[in-house]
Order: sequence, then structure tokens, then C-alpha cells
Amino acid sequence: MRYKETKKNKLLYDLLKNHGVKIYEDLDNGVFPKFLIPSRSTRNIIYDRKLRQYVLGNSASIRNSKNISQLRSFTQLTWLAFFANRLIKEKKSSTLRDIYYSSQAFSIDFEDQPESDNIIVDLESVLSRPREDLHIFPEERSSVFGDLVIEYTVPGYEGKRTNLSDHPDGYLIGPSLSSAELIETSADLVIAIEKGGLFTRFVEEQVDKKFKSIIIDTAGQAPRSTRYLLRRLHEELNLPVVILTDGDVYGEHIAMVIKSGSANAAHLRELTVPDAKWIGVWASDIEKYKLPTIPMTESDIKRIHDLKKDPRYQQGIWKNELDVFLKIKRKAELEAFSKYGLTNITDKYLPQKLEMAKSL
Amino acid sequence: MRYKETKKNKLLYDLLKNHGVKIYEDLDNGVFPKFLIPSRSTRNIIYDRKLRQYVLGNSASIRNSKNISQLRSFTQLTWLAFFANRLIKEKKSSTLRDIYYSSQAFSIDFEDQPESDNIIVDLESVLSRPREDLHIFPEERSSVFGDLVIEYTVPGYEGKRTNLSDHPDGYLIGPSLSSAELIETSADLVIAIEKGGLFTRFVEEQVDKKFKSIIIDTAGQAPRSTRYLLRRLHEELNLPVVILTDGDVYGEHIAMVIKSGSANAAHLRELTVPDAKWIGVWASDIEKYKLPTIPMTESDIKRIHDLKKDPRYQQGIWKNELDVFLKIKRKAELEAFSKYGLTNITDKYLPQKLEMAKSL
Repeated sequence: MRYKETKKNKLLYDLLKNHGVKIYEDLDNGVFPKFLIPSRSTRNIIYDRKLRQYVLGNSASIRNSKNISQLRSFTQLTWLAFFANRLIKEKKSSTLRDIYYSSQAFSIDFEDQPESDNIIVDLESVLSRPREDLHIFPEERSSVFGDLVIEYTVPGYEGKRTNLSDHPDGYLIGPSLSSAELIETSADLVIAIEKGGLFTRFVEEQVDKKFKSIIIDTAGQAPRSTRYLLRRLHEELNLPVVILTDGDVYGEHIAMVIKSGSANAAHLRELTVPDAKWIGVWASDIEKYKLPTIPMTESDIKRIHDLKKDPRYQQGIWKNELDVFLKIKRKAELEAFSKYGLTNITDKYLPQKLEMAKSL
Repeated sequence: MRYKETKKNKLLYDLLKNHGVKIYEDLDNGVFPKFLIPSRSTRNIIYDRKLRQYVLGNSASIRNSKNISQLRSFTQLTWLAFFANRLIKEKKSSTLRDIYYSSQAFSIDFEDQPESDNIIVDLESVLSRPREDLHIFPEERSSVFGDLVIEYTVPGYEGKRTNLSDHPDGYLIGPSLSSAELIETSADLVIAIEKGGLFTRFVEEQVDKKFKSIIIDTAGQAPRSTRYLLRRLHEELNLPVVILTDGDVYGEHIAMVIKSGSANAAHLRELTVPDAKWIGVWASDIEKYKLPTIPMTESDIKRIHDLKKDPRYQQGIWKNELDVFLKIKRKAELEAFSKYGLTNITDKYLPQKLEMAKSL
């Protein structure tokens, strides 16, 4: 199975190498080298109904070393491709912040970290590969728990296996887990949940055993490494994915981003689970389950109006629940079920919503 | 070893029971029941030079059910003691947020979560026990990695053991790890580090093996569960603790809080490691290691002036480094070492500072 990882690295080498070779050829031929970068301007971000995610359209811009105003970012991008190649070869990981500081060793000038972050997105776009494949990780982390055996591919751990039900506080989804092979599971389902407190509750109430599930704490908006893991669990192990969030517009959108991605990652695939189902907390659940509520703020309401313009919110529960939120102008948190006992959410709500999800 | 956990719970039962019995006795005798709550006002928070941490002085206030204006908070506190007792008996964990919502099931009125959070601190003060002992956990989490065998005490995992070097992304310090027994380690040292990115770097560069250490990511200001673990590693396993932070006033204070606690937890012990050593990044390291810097903001400088009034910053490196920061008015992050290569911090800086620490 390790072959796959090597194959992925091999493809990346080839991609990076092709760009390098092209630059040398151009120089040999007395031509200014350049990159073709797919445009990430909002006008070039399109919702693809077939892929069920945002993708980039056909616009692209040329980053040309001939152009004085582009020479700086051309150089930065070339350096980053060189540095990413080295990271992969040396099997080292790095962070967005590391990249910013590492550039200084090579006298590559970045004004600040946002400038280097932006060049990293440029390179992602050029290669159509996420920065994680280039061993560049953000600090954001979430966690996973359940009967899933993984096999590491990171140096020092190659071939070692761990069962992700061994540590009941959950396993961090970091570089090692992201690059591990998924070996086997007895689970029939993945439950993604927005909050650490509920994640702990779910582990404590053995939701993994009772519902034969793998539980994932997205810790708010799911980080990309978590969305990548969700997709792999769905694609490689054929597990359906359900999502539980707070009962508010931000919760609904957390579920949507897991399902169909975000506009600012439109240049990437492999981060979406188009078949994922948002099972709650719906606006309509608030009354149905008599949950304690909090009034919406002005910005909550503005956010609903914004999402109503989004092509993904034009039908089904996505539209309906937005409309109910707008009508009741109140929201409820996952913890609100505690009013009816700490285990009410796992004893009553979860089984009912999982049953309901079958017909979604 | 499980005896210890049971003994801790037994002590808590007795504490809670004594309060309950007292309330019933008062009622039987026609006396209004009350609580004696140590005062947490700044005038009653004293730095104890012998304990080397903040403690509460002798002032206390009476929360009396006879007093109409105190009846509400008296009732809240009594309910919380009842609820905590139930949590411990049923071996359930909860969050600060859960407590807020759970109160509604009992028609106990809290205006908002800050009000219930505050009552939780009252109960901590009354019992002199941290909320974690009452199975009330915050959501904040950090992580740990290294050759340390722990044995769980949580339901379903009693007697199970895990080696915390099995998962190279690190282990979350949640309720299960916090309540586990520390069984054995080959480590000679604990290294607490402020940032997840560096934590990953340290694991990747095998700092655990090269320096026979347990590595802890404090994820910024160390959460209480992490400070509690650091203390236990120091007390139960006799491991020295060193701390690495960003080279700024906030980093210096992160180290100080691990060492001697915070004023707002002055009503608690067991969260400090008075022998812990802050080994960097010092203000004086910035020039010595020629680190890329960032200018300080006005609020950085104000913070330095505030800390200069703190009794703990009146001598040694604590005072000296504050003075250097104030002189150079610049700061440097841990990632700044990446300028000299990704492994510069683990190959050069860390061994030099560990050597230096022996004379601290």
C-alpha cells in the first residue's frame, strides 16, 4: 500500500520537474520564463453542478519574468517550487510560517506572511495539488476517534499501525495521520461533529460502538486536513458521512463546506464529500425538540441573506432550513440538548436523525 | 494505582457531602444555610514566595440564603454542588457550556454562561479543588508526545495502557489522559513548547529520542489540564520541565504561568511547576542568534510595563529579559530559526539552551 504514497510523490516530482525543465529550456533559448496561473478571481469561480463543488473556470494569468512588476512574484514562486521539492525529498514537514522564515535564508524577499501564504496558493493552483501534498501544513488541528486501523508512512513509523480507538481523548489529525494508509475498520458510518465538547460526550457514550461509527471533531469550520480525511473515509472505505453542527447559519455552512468545498479552495479537488449529509441541528429541530435558544444577531441574519444567493442553497433542506432560521430568528447550540440530560443528544436525538437521514 | 483516583473521588464526595449535611442541619435547626467563599478580589490575591505561586489571603465572604440578594447565587451554588456530585458518581464528563444548559432542566436560572462559569469558580474556591476534579472540562486542548506509558481510569478503558509515542501527531490532553495514571517513561526531561508547528517539528526531528524527552504542545497559554499534567510529570516522575516560547513578552509570561500559576487560579494549587525553567526564546537570544524580528506594538510595550510591577518579575532572567525586550523593542518567533534551516532550532539552539539550563 505504501506504493500509493510513493506514486503520489512521484507524480509531484514530475510536475515540479516539468516546470523546472521548462524554465531552463526558456533560459537556454533566450526566452523569459513564465508560469501560467489559473485565475482565482471571483469571476472565475464557478459552481460545478456535476462535480458538486466550486471549481475554477478557464481564465488564467501569466506570471512573466519579462514583466518587471511580476519579476518579484515569479521569483518567489520559483523558489517555493524548489523548496517544496526539497521538503518532499527530505520527508520534512513545514508550516506556512516556516515557509515565510525559510525564504530569508535564500534572500527571497516576502513583505510579510500573507504575501508568502499567497504564493503558496499560487503554487497550489499551478500544480492543482493541495499544499499538504507539498508537506506544508497549517497549525489548525482537529481529531478523530473510532475503530480504524491506520498505517503510518512518515519516517521512523513506516509500516507501524495504530487503532484510532486506543486513546479515548481522540487522535490529532496532523501530518502523520493525513499521510497514513487507511487499513481497516468495523465502522459503517462517519459522524463529523462541530465541537470538542460533544466529541468527548460521543466517545464517552460509546457512539462509536452503538452506531458503529468513526467520530470526527471538526473543531468549528473543518480544516482542510480533516476534509481530506473525511473524503478518504468516504472514497476508500465506502463510509457514508453525516454532519452534526450547532443549529445556526454558521453550522449549516460548516456542513456545506464539508459537502462541496469553499470558494477559496476552488482550485483544488479532493477536499469535498458531495454525498455527505447534514443531519442537524436544523432550524426546524429547534421547535421540534424544544431546545433552549439564543436570539440571532444582525450579522447572523446578514449571513443568511448572503447564503440565500449561493447556488448551493437553492433547494432541499439547504434552502428550507435557511428559510426557517430567517423566520424564527433564533439559534440553538448542540449543548442545548443538555437541558434534557447530558445523554439526551446521544440517546434520543442522534438515533432519530440517523434514521431520518436514510431518506435524505 | 487506581486506588489513588478512587481516593481522590472519595475525598471529593466527603467534601461535597459535608456541605450538604450542613445545609440540612441548618434547615432542621431553623437556621438559614450559607456558604463561606474565599474572596478572589485582587486585594486578597497574594504571591506566596514559599509556595512560589499566587494564593488567596484570609478574606472570605458569606453567601447567605437569608440575604435576598444572595439567595439566587446561593441556590445556583447548591445546585452545582449537587450536579457535580452526580457527574462524579456517574463517571460522566461535562463542559462549562453543558453546565449552563443542564441547569435549565432543574429550573435553575442562569442569565448566561458567564454567570454559570462564575459559580463554577465559586465552587472551586469553596472546595479548593479544580473543576476538572468535578468532571467539568473546558474545550481547550493541547497535546503530548513521547515515551510515556499511561493507564486509563475512564469507564470502558480501566486498566488499558497506551504508550504516548505510538501516534506521531501527538495525543490530545483531554479528560481521559488527565485522569490516567502515569506508569513509566524512559524520558529524563519534559519540553513544553508554545506552538503546534514546532511540536510537529520536534517530533519529526526525534527530539524525544535525541534528548530523552516528553514533548508537550501548550498551544499558546497552557490550558489548566496541561499545567496539571506538567506538574504530575514533575512530581510523580521527577522529570525536570523546560519551556520554549516565542521571544516576546507573551512568551515569557506563558512560561511564568506554567511556573507559578495565574492570579485568577489563585484559589487552586496543583497547577504550577515552581521548578520549571524558561529556556527561550529570550530577548537576549534575538541578537545572539541573529533572528529575524518583528517590531513590538504599543500593547506589547504596555504589557512589559505591567509585568515589571509583578512581584515575580523582580529578579533573575525574568527581570533581565523584560529589560532587554524593552530596550530592543523587537520580538522574534520560534519559527524565526527556520531562516537558518528547518532543523536549526533542534540541531543547534535546543542543545545549547538545554546545556545552559543546567546552570539556571
